[in-house]
Amino acid sequence: MTTASICTIGDEILIGQIVDTNSAHISRALNDLGIRVSEMVSTGDRLADIISTLESGLRKNDIVIVTGGLGPTKDDITKKALAMLSEAECWKRNPEQLEIIHRILSARGLDVLEINLAQADVPDTCTVIPNKLGTAPVMVFDFPKERFGHNATLYSLPGVPFEAIGALNDVMSDIRSKYSVSDIYHKTVMTFGIAESALSEMISEWEDNLPSDMHLAYLPNPLTGVRLRLSIYGGERSVQESRINERLEDLEAILGDAMYSDEDETLETCIGKLLKGTGMTISTAESCTGGTIAAMLTSVAGSSEYYLGSVVSYANNVKTEVLGVDEKILVRHGAVSSECVAAMADGVRRLTGSDFSIATSGIAGPGGGSDAKPVGLVWIGVSSQKSTETFSMVFKGDRKRNIERFAANALNILRKKLVNELNN
Amino acid sequence: MTTASICTIGDEILIGQIVDTNSAHISRALNDLGIRVSEMVSTGDRLADIISTLESGLRKNDIVIVTGGLGPTKDDITKKALAMLSEAECWKRNPEQLEIIHRILSARGLDVLEINLAQADVPDTCTVIPNKLGTAPVMVFDFPKERFGHNATLYSLPGVPFEAIGALNDVMSDIRSKYSVSDIYHKTVMTFGIAESALSEMISEWEDNLPSDMHLAYLPNPLTGVRLRLSIYGGERSVQESRINERLEDLEAILGDAMYSDEDETLETCIGKLLKGTGMTISTAESCTGGTIAAMLTSVAGSSEYYLGSVVSYANNVKTEVLGVDEKILVRHGAVSSECVAAMADGVRRLTGSDFSIATSGIAGPGGGSDAKPVGLVWIGVSSQKSTETFSMVFKGDRKRNIERFAANALNILRKKLVNELNN
Repeated sequence: MTTASICTIGDEILIGQIVDTNSAHISRALNDLGIRVSEMVSTGDRLADIISTLESGLRKNDIVIVTGGLGPTKDDITKKALAMLSEAECWKRNPEQLEIIHRILSARGLDVLEINLAQADVPDTCTVIPNKLGTAPVMVFDFPKERFGHNATLYSLPGVPFEAIGALNDVMSDIRSKYSVSDIYHKTVMTFGIAESALSEMISEWEDNLPSDMHLAYLPNPLTGVRLRLSIYGGERSVQESRINERLEDLEAILGDAMYSDEDETLETCIGKLLKGTGMTISTAESCTGGTIAAMLTSVAGSSEYYLGSVVSYANNVKTEVLGVDEKILVRHGAVSSECVAAMADGVRRLTGSDFSIATSGIAGPGGGSDAKPVGLVWIGVSSQKSTETFSMVFKGDRKRNIERFAANALNILRKKLVNELNN
Repeated sequence: MTTASICTIGDEILIGQIVDTNSAHISRALNDLGIRVSEMVSTGDRLADIISTLESGLRKNDIVIVTGGLGPTKDDITKKALAMLSEAECWKRNPEQLEIIHRILSARGLDVLEINLAQADVPDTCTVIPNKLGTAPVMVFDFPKERFGHNATLYSLPGVPFEAIGALNDVMSDIRSKYSVSDIYHKTVMTFGIAESALSEMISEWEDNLPSDMHLAYLPNPLTGVRLRLSIYGGERSVQESRINERLEDLEAILGDAMYSDEDETLETCIGKLLKGTGMTISTAESCTGGTIAAMLTSVAGSSEYYLGSVVSYANNVKTEVLGVDEKILVRHGAVSSECVAAMADGVRRLTGSDFSIATSGIAGPGGGSDAKPVGLVWIGVSSQKSTETFSMVFKGDRKRNIERFAANALNILRKKLVNELNN
């Protein structure tokens, strides 16, 4: 199997100043070609470290993809390291990249300085894939078998994420032309409401019976629940895909409505799919979640088709005056109560004229809890023309984590309500 | 100088399904102790790969911090790899972690399964730092000089970011007790509204005149602006701190109100500090930001003292009926207009009875733009008893990034209004 190493260069990553997102994009592209990424490495702007990291990657893998360290300033030394590693004799100025540099800088109204032109200079040991989105070209170094014990190719990509991602298509075609790539098939299903360990027990028999070439991964996330990913390398697409689908059908039978999607998507995207084209609308009334549910729902492009709005009723007078919650409810039961979230949900549905609504009221912490109503307690109300229901849960996180769990559980309750009522 | 390697374990990273954010947090903590991070490595869930990566890290560094692969499920094999690497003879069940596991699961109302209890099992070759936030303990392996040519320590942390970050304090104290760490003094100031490159030009003379032992780092973030961190290694605390403070006073004179704090804090925390104890209150009306501003403001503990609530008026009928925006404004100027955000801001202030308010309306994209009102355009209104003002800006990001920038800029406008009116 063809393998690859992804290497990121730059002190800003090693000191924790920026998070490397390029490697995830590159590895997805490689995985889609059926190339196994054996490691990702980040190293600093030191010549010796860069060269030893790249040599080690080339010894162990067919392909090394390196990003970063190609800027015009003095602290960027990847190109120098690559020239040394490939034993280059001189620099060549690449005419295609040169033209792009002129075009980009003049479009920005900037003078073209020698420091900019020098970005088109590459070691004579590489071929160039022009970078249409930036000034630093993609360099391709092919190493003969004698050098690392096997044919090996190194691709040097710019570090700017937008440019690195933009170059990926060309890089992947070059890889396809040089290496035998086996396909990878994988499918992700989304579950919510069952902890990873309980899920693992629940499906352990199913998991134990998986064929040995199928691999299952658990990917827990507080906002989306546990993702389960089933994958196989190699074989024929139609055969492997139907083998995976068969297993997932069995899985769905075990998981029931805890499985909310057979695609890699969030609860809010799933809710959007349920609502789109139905003409049905939703609204939200949030106390403890403070707008987080609204922000999640509106993160989906096109959500204005079905999402009308929210009242974040942090203060009690907003609950009574805007949402119309009866003051007696607040006095008798308090804001964190079944009665209050039911009234909030009904209130926002009336106010906005939506078909469905959810409401939250709880204690995110750190302060404000009592024995009867501890920090981490949330009440969630869900309302439609047919019925209004309420649920309560307790979580033990910090403020941020509690708010996330409150919001995700509210979305899951809304999802279940939509599934029930829209299908009937 | 003491050096460290950070290692992340999990197929989900190598296939690009999740982005590793733990390493950045860990490297910041290590850098704060004056420990140089020499590399970051991600490897998959394969026993041989894990062991060889860790061995290589331990050979080259004093400290290796590894995260991930500690879940209860079968695909998580870090613990097994660590047992082999450290030549463990048996497993020990750690009583402190066991108690935490019981407490966490019972608080969640879950049964305690054998698979959960087994998370407290650790190789007999390690010591344990209990993980109070989750079920998998932190394991500490001390290797004698003979093994890797120098004393070396490996820390195994859970992969869940919340738990990994939560364990960092204890891990750093353990490192302090075992390795010579030089003290580091640093202070961060927060700026907003000036791009990194423009900021760098603006303060270049000040920066050039910094003493050679002071280091300046730029840490840009769309939600908080550019953080500037000034640091010195070693020396006497009181002397070094006053040297840093002197330089920062000069910096403040250059930056003016673009500098919003001399602590490492967010805009919403800064707004909270301005309001606390004044008896003044705020509210928000959000269209394009869809609850993001409310969520940011309420992420601050104690925000209920001054934050009354928000109307997320995604649909136009919520703007007119709940916020009282005149329909003529929507017809004549559209929802994305100066007139609309002014009316929204005034409306929500009236509705909630708050002293100050902000409102947003814009086009986050990807669709919905026009030549006159392109994707990325936002109008922001800010209102108080004294005056209502509006501002417009255009950003060029994707939907998520645009929403973040809209929200952060609205908070910054509110902050400036508060500074002006509360001080007069």
